[in-house]
Amino acid sequence: MFKLHGFAVSNYANMVKHCLIEKGIEFEQLDARPSQEENYLAMSPMGKVPCLETPEGFLSETSAILDYLDELQPDPPMYPSQVFKRAKAREIMRVTELYIEIAARRHLGAAFFGRERSEEAYAEVRPQVEKGLRAFAQLASFGPYVMGSDFGSADIFVYHSFRLASPVLKRTYDWDIRAEVPGLAAHIAVMDERDSTRLVVADHEKAMAELMAQIAAAK
Amino acid sequence: MFKLHGFAVSNYANMVKHCLIEKGIEFEQLDARPSQEENYLAMSPMGKVPCLETPEGFLSETSAILDYLDELQPDPPMYPSQVFKRAKAREIMRVTELYIEIAARRHLGAAFFGRERSEEAYAEVRPQVEKGLRAFAQLASFGPYVMGSDFGSADIFVYHSFRLASPVLKRTYDWDIRAEVPGLAAHIAVMDERDSTRLVVADHEKAMAELMAQIAAAK
Repeated sequence: MFKLHGFAVSNYANMVKHCLIEKGIEFEQLDARPSQEENYLAMSPMGKVPCLETPEGFLSETSAILDYLDELQPDPPMYPSQVFKRAKAREIMRVTELYIEIAARRHLGAAFFGRERSEEAYAEVRPQVEKGLRAFAQLASFGPYVMGSDFGSADIFVYHSFRLASPVLKRTYDWDIRAEVPGLAAHIAVMDERDSTRLVVADHEKAMAELMAQIAAAK
Repeated sequence: MFKLHGFAVSNYANMVKHCLIEKGIEFEQLDARPSQEENYLAMSPMGKVPCLETPEGFLSETSAILDYLDELQPDPPMYPSQVFKRAKAREIMRVTELYIEIAARRHLGAAFFGRERSEEAYAEVRPQVEKGLRAFAQLASFGPYVMGSDFGSADIFVYHSFRLASPVLKRTYDWDIRAEVPGLAAHIAVMDERDSTRLVVADHEKAMAELMAQIAAAK
């Protein structure tokens, strides 16, 4: 039995949950927040969520977990069967993570949690995301899925990365990055219709609303 | 025939070269620098090096290329054969990349290329790398290789990540991160002895010396 340590505010926890649901792998959800406590670091060495508890031990880092789940249970497949195309799926996932999601994340605290904005980040992030979006648009095929006609890990990764990056960059720069990539709006619409997405998004919206209410009450 | 677009100053280009040599895959080296020119972006969508030209097309992002090479030509293997252990190899590669190499890289320009130091980066990077090193030490087994008795992609990734991060952080904080991880010095010594490493490191040192001389001459 798998245990997913995380919480539904985390877009990375939601990627792993989304994949588990698509694979039909049974799992238990255990509430965990990013933490530097010894007990949690023993499971997740950076103290991050998600962390997947498997029969063989703990595993962190979402991209490693997504690959693991596909190798453990190849059906339904989450990567293209052809070796080069599988590499292209991993390439677009890295581009999305490193140059869009992680870049936008620098503004997360200021955009949503009342922290002070970093002017250095303000100057650096937008040009980096512009490059990231250009690369992303070049690599994506949207047929309607990111890698073409077949759904997979790249779709999960892209969908939940933009669910964080889009609102953060909208609030920070009044900039709608979803409109910058032809085909992305249609991809999001197709993803929104999946049963797996509905489950993950419903939990995400509920958890975000609760968190925002807590923050408002604490002011 | 494979063509590796890059140059020997780039630790990521060196990772791919190191893997190609270990695999015994023939390749041609073509000189390329990070560039935002249209011609290069058509090959490497972020304009980064390395970029691998394969019979089926171009591929960027080092971790995607390393996985690709192993799937294309599984012998000699660069990942553990057991699924969970393979996931642990990818986990330690992500931890090394995201929380040690990319963090340290924020000081690269100031440490080596005469750029101004960012005080924001100065405050943020060290605590992040401390967490990264702690996680890295927890995940590594050093038997003597990162994942135990077998050499693989994790060793290549770790070795060339520390080759960048160590001197950058030494210059920035007078901090020797290699001394922070028990077993790492022995790992580096074992890696230094490999024929593949000698080839890659000789080219790296030559290219770095040339670059530093050019920078000194331009002052």
